[in-house]
Amino acid sequence: MATADIGLIGLGVMGQNLALNIHDHGYGVVVYNRTPTKIEEFLSGSAKDTSITAAHTLEALVDGLASPRRIILMIQAGDPVDTTIAALLPLLDQGDIIIDGGNSHFPDTIRRTKALAADGFGFIGAGISGGEEGARHGPSIMPGGNPDSWPAVQPILQSISAHVDGEPCCQWIGEGGAGHYVKMVHNGIEYGDMQLIAEAYQLMHLGLGMTHQEMQATFQQWNKGKLSSYLIEITADIMGVNDTDGEPLLEKIRDTAGQKGTGLWTAMSALEHGMPVTLISEAVFARCLSALKTSRIETSKHYPHQIPEFTGDREVFLNQLCDALYASKIISYAQGFMLMQSASHAYQWHLDYGNIALTWRGGCIIRSQFLNDIKRAYDKKPQLDNLLWDDFFVDAVTQSLSGWRTTIQSAVAMGLPIPAFSSALSFFDSYRSAKTSANLLQAQRDYFGAHTYERIDQPRGEFFHSQWSQDT
Amino acid sequence: MATADIGLIGLGVMGQNLALNIHDHGYGVVVYNRTPTKIEEFLSGSAKDTSITAAHTLEALVDGLASPRRIILMIQAGDPVDTTIAALLPLLDQGDIIIDGGNSHFPDTIRRTKALAADGFGFIGAGISGGEEGARHGPSIMPGGNPDSWPAVQPILQSISAHVDGEPCCQWIGEGGAGHYVKMVHNGIEYGDMQLIAEAYQLMHLGLGMTHQEMQATFQQWNKGKLSSYLIEITADIMGVNDTDGEPLLEKIRDTAGQKGTGLWTAMSALEHGMPVTLISEAVFARCLSALKTSRIETSKHYPHQIPEFTGDREVFLNQLCDALYASKIISYAQGFMLMQSASHAYQWHLDYGNIALTWRGGCIIRSQFLNDIKRAYDKKPQLDNLLWDDFFVDAVTQSLSGWRTTIQSAVAMGLPIPAFSSALSFFDSYRSAKTSANLLQAQRDYFGAHTYERIDQPRGEFFHSQWSQDT
Repeated sequence: MATADIGLIGLGVMGQNLALNIHDHGYGVVVYNRTPTKIEEFLSGSAKDTSITAAHTLEALVDGLASPRRIILMIQAGDPVDTTIAALLPLLDQGDIIIDGGNSHFPDTIRRTKALAADGFGFIGAGISGGEEGARHGPSIMPGGNPDSWPAVQPILQSISAHVDGEPCCQWIGEGGAGHYVKMVHNGIEYGDMQLIAEAYQLMHLGLGMTHQEMQATFQQWNKGKLSSYLIEITADIMGVNDTDGEPLLEKIRDTAGQKGTGLWTAMSALEHGMPVTLISEAVFARCLSALKTSRIETSKHYPHQIPEFTGDREVFLNQLCDALYASKIISYAQGFMLMQSASHAYQWHLDYGNIALTWRGGCIIRSQFLNDIKRAYDKKPQLDNLLWDDFFVDAVTQSLSGWRTTIQSAVAMGLPIPAFSSALSFFDSYRSAKTSANLLQAQRDYFGAHTYERIDQPRGEFFHSQWSQDT
Repeated sequence: MATADIGLIGLGVMGQNLALNIHDHGYGVVVYNRTPTKIEEFLSGSAKDTSITAAHTLEALVDGLASPRRIILMIQAGDPVDTTIAALLPLLDQGDIIIDGGNSHFPDTIRRTKALAADGFGFIGAGISGGEEGARHGPSIMPGGNPDSWPAVQPILQSISAHVDGEPCCQWIGEGGAGHYVKMVHNGIEYGDMQLIAEAYQLMHLGLGMTHQEMQATFQQWNKGKLSSYLIEITADIMGVNDTDGEPLLEKIRDTAGQKGTGLWTAMSALEHGMPVTLISEAVFARCLSALKTSRIETSKHYPHQIPEFTGDREVFLNQLCDALYASKIISYAQGFMLMQSASHAYQWHLDYGNIALTWRGGCIIRSQFLNDIKRAYDKKPQLDNLLWDDFFVDAVTQSLSGWRTTIQSAVAMGLPIPAFSSALSFFDSYRSAKTSANLLQAQRDYFGAHTYERIDQPRGEFFHSQWSQDT
């Protein structure tokens, strides 16, 4: 009875939708869930008129699969993945392949790929983005792990993924933890994009006094231009939703943002690699700060603040704001790609950045027009060292500079926080400086700690120490 | 022959100076170093006319100490500490005390305190700040570890530490890793203070076109007022040092800053605790960015920039800059204390923040006038929840606000990076907001991931999900 093409474990919403998606593409699917009631619900619910079958034990799941077996886990990251793998292995044959489709932390995926390969099993760690909708109708998939396992899962994963211009948003990322790493950076970039939009919303709403209808129109307009993206699109939708009392639902939502760890992991990895991924880090900290609501309320009493009435030209301001968002977004992606470059080098993943842009163009939360431009930049020059050196982006940033600076100056005058806009600009103003102020840091460190320094007029690797104190 | 009061292992500059300092205060010291030549150099060098004795084996060191033995390690953090402890333990008696005076990572100190206590040995993990000078003439010491061990080492450590107003800058910090944690945050704050001064230097030098003599005069003047501190003092000194060609030595130094990990650990810990320690994190990233000099030079070619000539009133600008530095510094310390509070809660350290300010007032790199004000705030209200709520600091920030905002606007116009100044202001403008823009983040997360949200008009802990899309 070994006939199904793929087994799927974990019938949360993502797992259910992915099973339906795979089935839609003509593959035989057998599903399993630890809690049996979920299986029944699925089979009598959304899977009712499908040929999806269920297994009530792992043994039955394994027995129902054609060889080499392909089993995708759609379960909670962490220990559950290890537990499930341990339970599966005694039932599998050499060459069978386990696919982890959850948000696993990449060091775990590195470890699992290695351990399973040593025992003769295949393993794919695939980041999947796109939320429930994406899982159902075409997510962005970032597969990594054991390259020997890729050919056997490629047809299925590429068929169920989103497609843009006929190309699947599912390309082989790299060995070991590469897929989950790139998914992690994707989520970090998602944090950054969301924070940028939130800063723009606050400037429009509190700074310009715009209504939600007016903001909706602006976001809809932005979605037709260079900012065109899923997150701008859904923000426009959100602005149009009213509560039962006819007031904007958005303003009824408590302003304390949760996080699920991947943004934080991105910031941690940036610190570990010494890569200045400042915008995502500020976005993570902005969420942390939002959670301190009780303290914020107390602080607000000590520092009463009245936002000055806006007397300028709203259209001009909104165009500047659009430039600020666009330029900051370019910086954030440049930082994200810098981080991936550093990780690729450290872990020897040989990441293909054009492929990553291709994978992110559709299906995922950060999908956008903009990722086509990134893809084009890497098509033009596959070995492009930095996005900010591509002609298209040089023009884009240069043309946005004036509006970006003015927006920050306005926000600072209004007293509205813009951690992402301003950290992006400071990064840019540093990164385009052949000379920074870090010579003073080195002088100070040499002064108090004899840490020594290098000189600009001497070869690298020669270290000098000076007697700085004027006391002696 | 067991007569010495304390044994010291590790005769690097810090170790040598600490041995001399302890000897100066009337204690018998016996020293040991793995490389014997260093022992001879020390005894025939700076320890020549002292009663400091040397041991050439760990056995001899242990035999030379009165009971309970006190042995301080001044060696490289990490494995060497574990190796040395393992070599010492078989030679020690129950109740003997090992003191780790290096820059150990606090989780190691938690582990060591516990392991040694289980075997009946005492352990103190003491952060020591002040560089070579401090070690010789009075450092700031942050002792933690096993509280039972503290009475036996307290007289020695407090006598050799710096003193301010008759009080030793060495107060018991807390159990386990508390001392090394507080030292780590001290170093993080040091990163932040240095970055703020570097940003001010760049604005003066490149923005205002000030000479090094003029900058020296400004820093000297600042050192007489609210910014009075060791780091401002040495910055003034640095401005006055010329190279052999008569030009300022500072400008000959390569602008790529190194780091020793403690700033990075602070940022990591902030992420782990969900505390928005943005300024220190930006300071760490600014060092990372400085290290990418080759890329910066390439980027500078794509984005040529001319700093506009300054036509304003220099005195006015410098006063605003002074306010910006002062306010940003207050934010950085408030963030650092928020982090320590969070860690204290998580690790049950019961940190005494007034004691910490007292410990930092003298001897260490961040010593300043300002820490007296922090100490006073905690004296007034030991349970003060946030520095920014203390009347003194409310006034200080409020009076600095205008200059702070104007400085940032000027820097943005000049195209000079100010990651620390601006992240501090964005933190402030968020933290004093009863309402942030995070409600939009929650709406977006609910839209694409059904993450649910709380409502401002409903009790905490009740979660709502909405149908946001207008397609269905």
